Amino acid sequence: MKSRRVLFTLLPALALGATLAVGDEGMWMPQQIPDLAATLKTMGFQGDPKAFADLTGHPMGAVVSLGGCTASFVSPEGLIVTNHHCVQGSLQYNSTPERNLLSDGFLAKTRAEELWNGPGSRVSVTVSVREVTEQVLGKMPAKLTDRERYALIDRRVKEQTAACEKEGLRCRVASFFQGLRYYEIAQMEIQDVRLVYAPAAGIGNFGGETDNWQWPRHVGDFSFYRAYVGKDGKPAAFSKDNVPYAPKHHLRVSPQGAGPGELVFVAGYPGFTARHQTFAQVKDLTEWGLPRSVRRAQEQIAILTELSKEGKDLEIKAATRIRGLNNGLTKNKGVLEGLVKGGMLGQKEASEKELLAWIAADPMRQKDYGDVMPALAAIQAEVEKTRERDATFSALYAASPLLGSASNLYRLSRERAKKDLDREGEFQERNWARMKEGQQRMQRTLDARIDRALLRYVMLEAAGLPAAQRIAALDQKLGLTPGTPKEEAQAKIEKFLDGLLKESKLIEEAYRLSLFEATPEALANAKDPVLELAIALAPLDEEIRERSKTRQGALARLSPRAMKATLAQKGGLVAPDANSTLRVTFGQVKGVSPKDGMAYLPQTTVSGVAQKHTGKGEFNAPRRQLDAIKALASGKTTPFADAKLGSVPVDFLSTVDTTGGNSGSPTLNSKGELVGLLFDGTYDTVASDYLFDPVNTRSIHVDSRYMLWVMSEVDGAGHLLHEMGIR
Amino acid sequence: MKSRRVLFTLLPALALGATLAVGDEGMWMPQQIPDLAATLKTMGFQGDPKAFADLTGHPMGAVVSLGGCTASFVSPEGLIVTNHHCVQGSLQYNSTPERNLLSDGFLAKTRAEELWNGPGSRVSVTVSVREVTEQVLGKMPAKLTDRERYALIDRRVKEQTAACEKEGLRCRVASFFQGLRYYEIAQMEIQDVRLVYAPAAGIGNFGGETDNWQWPRHVGDFSFYRAYVGKDGKPAAFSKDNVPYAPKHHLRVSPQGAGPGELVFVAGYPGFTARHQTFAQVKDLTEWGLPRSVRRAQEQIAILTELSKEGKDLEIKAATRIRGLNNGLTKNKGVLEGLVKGGMLGQKEASEKELLAWIAADPMRQKDYGDVMPALAAIQAEVEKTRERDATFSALYAASPLLGSASNLYRLSRERAKKDLDREGEFQERNWARMKEGQQRMQRTLDARIDRALLRYVMLEAAGLPAAQRIAALDQKLGLTPGTPKEEAQAKIEKFLDGLLKESKLIEEAYRLSLFEATPEALANAKDPVLELAIALAPLDEEIRERSKTRQGALARLSPRAMKATLAQKGGLVAPDANSTLRVTFGQVKGVSPKDGMAYLPQTTVSGVAQKHTGKGEFNAPRRQLDAIKALASGKTTPFADAKLGSVPVDFLSTVDTTGGNSGSPTLNSKGELVGLLFDGTYDTVASDYLFDPVNTRSIHVDSRYMLWVMSEVDGAGHLLHEMGIR
Repeated sequence: MKSRRVLFTLLPALALGATLAVGDEGMWMPQQIPDLAATLKTMGFQGDPKAFADLTGHPMGAVVSLGGCTASFVSPEGLIVTNHHCVQGSLQYNSTPERNLLSDGFLAKTRAEELWNGPGSRVSVTVSVREVTEQVLGKMPAKLTDRERYALIDRRVKEQTAACEKEGLRCRVASFFQGLRYYEIAQMEIQDVRLVYAPAAGIGNFGGETDNWQWPRHVGDFSFYRAYVGKDGKPAAFSKDNVPYAPKHHLRVSPQGAGPGELVFVAGYPGFTARHQTFAQVKDLTEWGLPRSVRRAQEQIAILTELSKEGKDLEIKAATRIRGLNNGLTKNKGVLEGLVKGGMLGQKEASEKELLAWIAADPMRQKDYGDVMPALAAIQAEVEKTRERDATFSALYAASPLLGSASNLYRLSRERAKKDLDREGEFQERNWARMKEGQQRMQRTLDARIDRALLRYVMLEAAGLPAAQRIAALDQKLGLTPGTPKEEAQAKIEKFLDGLLKESKLIEEAYRLSLFEATPEALANAKDPVLELAIALAPLDEEIRERSKTRQGALARLSPRAMKATLAQKGGLVAPDANSTLRVTFGQVKGVSPKDGMAYLPQTTVSGVAQKHTGKGEFNAPRRQLDAIKALASGKTTPFADAKLGSVPVDFLSTVDTTGGNSGSPTLNSKGELVGLLFDGTYDTVASDYLFDPVNTRSIHVDSRYMLWVMSEVDGAGHLLHEMGIR
Repeated sequence: MKSRRVLFTLLPALALGATLAVGDEGMWMPQQIPDLAATLKTMGFQGDPKAFADLTGHPMGAVVSLGGCTASFVSPEGLIVTNHHCVQGSLQYNSTPERNLLSDGFLAKTRAEELWNGPGSRVSVTVSVREVTEQVLGKMPAKLTDRERYALIDRRVKEQTAACEKEGLRCRVASFFQGLRYYEIAQMEIQDVRLVYAPAAGIGNFGGETDNWQWPRHVGDFSFYRAYVGKDGKPAAFSKDNVPYAPKHHLRVSPQGAGPGELVFVAGYPGFTARHQTFAQVKDLTEWGLPRSVRRAQEQIAILTELSKEGKDLEIKAATRIRGLNNGLTKNKGVLEGLVKGGMLGQKEASEKELLAWIAADPMRQKDYGDVMPALAAIQAEVEKTRERDATFSALYAASPLLGSASNLYRLSRERAKKDLDREGEFQERNWARMKEGQQRMQRTLDARIDRALLRYVMLEAAGLPAAQRIAALDQKLGLTPGTPKEEAQAKIEKFLDGLLKESKLIEEAYRLSLFEATPEALANAKDPVLELAIALAPLDEEIRERSKTRQGALARLSPRAMKATLAQKGGLVAPDANSTLRVTFGQVKGVSPKDGMAYLPQTTVSGVAQKHTGKGEFNAPRRQLDAIKALASGKTTPFADAKLGSVPVDFLSTVDTTGGNSGSPTLNSKGELVGLLFDGTYDTVASDYLFDPVNTRSIHVDSRYMLWVMSEVDGAGHLLHEMGIR
């Protein structure tokens, strides 16, 4: 296997003396950890690094995915710990007008009181990961167009996935190292997941948006689920007869937490990084993509905030959208600052120039790689030609979940007619149940007035597109041309939207679900104006997708070679970009100087909770917690206090390299014990998704001692401590 | 001498083992320093503490007062260093439409280019301090009313002062320890003071209002004057024939600065602290005085900001007032936060309760002190009865410098008729020249529109006073009664102010100066409406002053006894409240944690200047400085860099106990070398004026290395370094 050989020729570089500084990047594939043994040893690790490579052993077998978040088993009876912000959906689903779990929290005193999370909540346990590069890329015909290359890889990935799923598992064939290698990941999916315990928002979301991405931090961002399975021990749909799942492995929650200088590991599912993008791509992001995203988020937040004033119900629904926009806005601002003010764009340019010089310096390298970077640049230039139109087009679906649903229903109706392996991946039969669950979940936040307001915003953008980048179908629907004056365009859009949303029945969940098996013709005849708009937009949608497939085929040809050049140039062990697969990262508990003359200390304490408490809004700690803090200050002892700090620690900073998706990841000490939960990064960290900053990057964790202290001293959850074998 | 004995019985407490922790309070009288030898030794001091007690020796002989600021001689030719913010008056006086020294800075390349500061600028060199408690308080008649007691003490102070000034010095008899002791301070006053060097505002005021009271700080708050005297070496009025003054002592400016943990001393003239006030006084301040000040400052800033829009000239004049209001606003907010949120009011209450319990615990103490605290409380209660009226009344003069001048002219005209020793202290002949200078200095910022706007504000307050606290003379002038509706009152005030300011000639400097020797009758006949208002207000002014004198007589009877009780209770060495006399404080260069999870590092560096630079407003470092910082980062060496920091230090924090008036004070190392200049305290420090916070209090200094680096690398002031004996 060619790729395997490449791996082997790269890995020994470390053994020959290449070492990693603490704080160096690396969302490592678990199987890479044994190769980092020397580094780990210099950092004081005394365990066996091979333990991390065994995904079904301890501790990795205890780490699970919630889809977008990470979690871990912490008792032999299926108890799961994750972030408080990862259980929001369950808290919302289980709230009633009488009982607001989002604000008040929840504690099941008995198993019978545990609350089902509702449809779509899943716990995915990774049971195997194996390399399938040969199966995906092997024996390629010599002459293939880019479009054919895309189709062949896509086909092989689907076949591989189908074969894997025959055993009742959920499988994914994922690309690593820019398509240089492929791995097949098999997961067992537990569908009956129940809420066990979440602290009140005054603890679990203390600091709210104000503190998001910030330090010092004082949030108790932890909550507990329990996994249930059928009596046969196998995953089953929610049922009262289900029993707690007995995981093969669970983590021991340490009552000692973690302290400054300590080596910590984070095992989890980081979602996305793009550190191996080309300079041209990052430049486009910096100069066009991010400023555009920041501006649009601000404008849409303003629109939704205004709209929220129209009623309590609307306010609650808009709040979810606003929260999402705000989170992205802050992150994008941070990335932009890091790239521009932090000078990281310049570093990216310099490192690419080095690569080009390295290639140019050797005729063999020129032969192997000389054409790659110019070809990638040409692809990027091509993308940029229609970036305004393409971005605005996809924004239509993002603005309106109703339009997005209509589009998906129409695409499903057309794909359904094909054989399953011929279908687009997302419309294969294996995803139908999920699509339905998605339709059910979205119902709670649907409101036609929100769709209308944001569609109006995007359609106005579309009306202003340059002549060469028009969305013709939309122009036709709205009666617009490139020259239409703004006021006229506005009036036409208003009129169109009046008809569109007042007459559509798609807002009804039952109606949408009833269309799941409809034919394209039936949908076209349904006379629903939102469906009609989706159908009118479908040809351009298809055209853009086709172009993307051809481009992906070209990238499948070029990107792995660019990656190879980089690997050869660096001559060291490199971690692949994050792709929502299980990774292990490690680093030290450590503060940082965010600016000249100031330092973030590595830990916070409960005294800071009392300092920040205002009794209002985002800084409203529960009375019983404030009392417990006062009791502590007055000398009450607790096993969860830190002698050096003279208090109970709350959150801590580490040099561990993480990103979104890692939320809820267990933070482990050298003994594999859970000493905390990863839940955020500092503001100076977010640009690391594009270029790692080894000086300023810090992850933020909640200390296990704070979890245990809150559970025992504030929330009366002693029975869960007992279940976890503590005290 | 009774008081001398008390001093002796108190001081040995230290020798017997009482030690002071680093960061403990103490704006020590220089003569107290030898008694702190043991503490200094534990802090690593190896010099002779007695050196600080010798005010005419080294280093104290080099420390001078600028009136409101401190400074020090740093060359044998009269070169003086102080804060940049202490030379604002000179920069303003010497600016022209063509040359804005406030923004661009100034450097005299030769002595001939040095610029006179203008009238009123003085350098005061303390030449002797001696205790005169016996002369002021000795042999008091047994039976005296409080009013008589006030008069007797006032008379003795004036006689003592007059005797002292016979030798051509400026003297002051000041109360220490709440009137328990009196000291006579004699100063030589140099009147010809010239501007030598001030960096541009982008260095000397870098960070401006935004960074005021904050950390991290990156301001180069330093500037240089030179003292000139007559050819006979004696103080003389400004003249081209004057020559540089040759001080007996000057400080060596250290090119090594100060580093973390180092013991540093600050010698200077702290203006005001009130740590020995009663709880009732601090409570009144917290619940009434400070909230009122904060609200009024905000409202007046809003009024002046609005007014500023009417023209450039007005904007410049209003800016001075706004800056002053802003500075006070920030400080008062900080004090309030410390007292309320920081819990210091509670501490004050607890410590007073302890004192009361200590008194109650012993019949002898009850006999000695039992009546004191209740009597002080009764005085405070009496003050509070008319606090609204009294505060509003004095605010009239503060609002309008014109009205203030008119009032002073009228009082002067009446006092002039008396023998000098019978005059009110401020109107004695020794102050006449100063009063005239004051009238000249104020001319630059006078504008009737500002007086009008703020008088309107205060008169509206007066219109709203309760019936029992009216300003009758004002009511009569304005035609108001307690019940007048607000709109009607407003209209009447507008009308009155129209007449008042349009018809007054007091805005003319020459006119005001021409009235300096006028009789009361002449002033009454001058038909100037502002003078007429001042004369109408005079009876209440006199009544309030008389009440104050009686109260001061009572306090002279009670406060020293309260102080004695406190001293006896504490049984240790205590520093008196600041009173603008020369003090020595000491502490360590040290960071602080301003809140849980965060730390202020003890030093900042020039890299932080580049980080903060925006090129606009308050963060606009000069291009040549940014270039120098870049050169430094690229490896250019300088003797002023700090090896550990890897850069040139800018400012540093210390535990030294300082307050307003200390600005410009030399910061000395154990060898008596100048390692920096004190220029500010952190926000968490300001409440220490009322109760010292030993944990959070930090002073802020500019490091001597930054001064020297800017002078040599940025501003081309190498000749001054040479004069100071550096390089």
